Amino acid sequence: MKKVVLGIDIGGTNTVFAWVDKSGNILSLQEISTQGTEPAQKFVDRLGEKVDHFLKNNSDCLLIGIGVGAPNANHFSGIIQNPPNLDWGEVDIVSILSQKYFCDVKLTNDANAAALGEKYYGLAKEMDDFIMITLGTGLGSGIYSNGRILYGDNSMAGELGHLSIDPNGRLCTCGLKGCLEMYVSAKGIKETIKEMLDKNPDDGFLNSLNMDNLDGKKIDAAVDRGNVSALNIYKEVSNKLGFGLAQAAILFSPNAFIFYGGYSQAGDRLLFPTRVALESYLMDNLKGKIQLLQSGLPVGHAGILGAASLIWHSKPLLMKAIGE
Amino acid sequence: MKKVVLGIDIGGTNTVFAWVDKSGNILSLQEISTQGTEPAQKFVDRLGEKVDHFLKNNSDCLLIGIGVGAPNANHFSGIIQNPPNLDWGEVDIVSILSQKYFCDVKLTNDANAAALGEKYYGLAKEMDDFIMITLGTGLGSGIYSNGRILYGDNSMAGELGHLSIDPNGRLCTCGLKGCLEMYVSAKGIKETIKEMLDKNPDDGFLNSLNMDNLDGKKIDAAVDRGNVSALNIYKEVSNKLGFGLAQAAILFSPNAFIFYGGYSQAGDRLLFPTRVALESYLMDNLKGKIQLLQSGLPVGHAGILGAASLIWHSKPLLMKAIGE
Repeated sequence: MKKVVLGIDIGGTNTVFAWVDKSGNILSLQEISTQGTEPAQKFVDRLGEKVDHFLKNNSDCLLIGIGVGAPNANHFSGIIQNPPNLDWGEVDIVSILSQKYFCDVKLTNDANAAALGEKYYGLAKEMDDFIMITLGTGLGSGIYSNGRILYGDNSMAGELGHLSIDPNGRLCTCGLKGCLEMYVSAKGIKETIKEMLDKNPDDGFLNSLNMDNLDGKKIDAAVDRGNVSALNIYKEVSNKLGFGLAQAAILFSPNAFIFYGGYSQAGDRLLFPTRVALESYLMDNLKGKIQLLQSGLPVGHAGILGAASLIWHSKPLLMKAIGE
Repeated sequence: MKKVVLGIDIGGTNTVFAWVDKSGNILSLQEISTQGTEPAQKFVDRLGEKVDHFLKNNSDCLLIGIGVGAPNANHFSGIIQNPPNLDWGEVDIVSILSQKYFCDVKLTNDANAAALGEKYYGLAKEMDDFIMITLGTGLGSGIYSNGRILYGDNSMAGELGHLSIDPNGRLCTCGLKGCLEMYVSAKGIKETIKEMLDKNPDDGFLNSLNMDNLDGKKIDAAVDRGNVSALNIYKEVSNKLGFGLAQAAILFSPNAFIFYGGYSQAGDRLLFPTRVALESYLMDNLKGKIQLLQSGLPVGHAGILGAASLIWHSKPLLMKAIGE
């Protein structure tokens, strides 16, 4: 029998899941619509059909556990708590799945799952201290510190997207002001573009952007041909990002920040100016020591691999017995 | 034979040390002047005389280890690195003391030592996630996260005093702008008073303060009799502190912030308005969940006890053998 773990990455729009062996090989990757307006049970039923189908047709595979990454996931309680964009309320996903499949089920939030994917199967294999930054609609972060994910008292630690970089800054959907993700994410870039348009309402490039469905690649292409407005977007974003990363660096002293997710595809267009900004905001003892890296994992894989690693790389019982 | 650990807290002006048993009982506490203008070897020699004297006169005591807390201490290398206020350069204190006394010697920075004192012998016994804040000339912090001190990649993590709360704020001695300790510490309070005096040069109370040797108790007494200028000092300090703590809370999700050191003697004069400010800067999922506490350990004891705990509570070899 081939031992496999089911890694699931629940997103606001789509859910991706795959069968993963211990080396991180993905045997089969599938995607379903999350459909967050329906009750969570319907989602579980639809997912279950796919899982049952796979297991029936792959009788040589032994399911030894399920790892789940999801927004607003509580690692300690196993409950997904009022996730944004999903009308689910609280879902005890660990109990539901473990009762259905009689196996070990573990849950972590989506950015932590991505960080674990990077730790076990990506750029961070040799690192004990790094911070994963996922750039999409918002800014997520998974903090891997002193050799493990930092959860804090209530599993809600590590929300770098809600670090305030300006107490009088932009109003965030969380109710606070100046949150980093209001400057560095699709949401944040839109706000920056709006402010730029307020100053230059006739800017041709800025007016050509579809604000309902902002296309990062279009901005990247404009940067590459030297469009000043496009360059200014990244200048603003990278300055705020560099300042925010510096604060995290002062607190965590990491080896690296690793970028993942749609907007991280900008690569050095974003990372190069961010490096310059970060260095300018660091204390001398940290200058020149922190890498900014772009994840090499395929889009969608980091979360699944990290979720699966919750099972493959969980600590042995001995460690629990001696209180660690 | 009675097993004892020597706990040493090296400060910029004075060094306090004591013989500590496993329960945290202090058998004898002594103090010497650090004299940071002299070479470090002279300091070690003077300290050694006191240690030798004690051991000679207490032949029933067996020295099983030495724990040291010091500014700019690197826990991993055992070296004190260019401490401010001490013209020592780099001092390999762990090698020096272990070669002299043939026992286990461990080093951590002063604020981490205070945090460990609180963990093993103070208010944080039941906590796995808390942040110790030491308020003196500057603002030090020891971050205890997920059940252990957070060191980061180079042992320099957890510098909450250098979290920037304003990229255009007050210039810090570290070269950065807006560092929290430039608002919340003796240094910071002096800056606040200077700014208030710029606006109100004739303020009687502010003019009565000795800026070369600022007396916190005098400000506290003025607060207690309702002096508006004194109240405004704490209003400003607590607002900045609350904002800074909120950023740390968003990243670490701690049970508590515990305050220690000279200026923490202000107690609720500082903590009450800081609670109000902190709550206003927290996301909903953290509101009402984080305690602000004043350490109950006697002045000077937290660092010594925490330094001693480096020996008493070091992880057993088994843990190291299995890679933890």
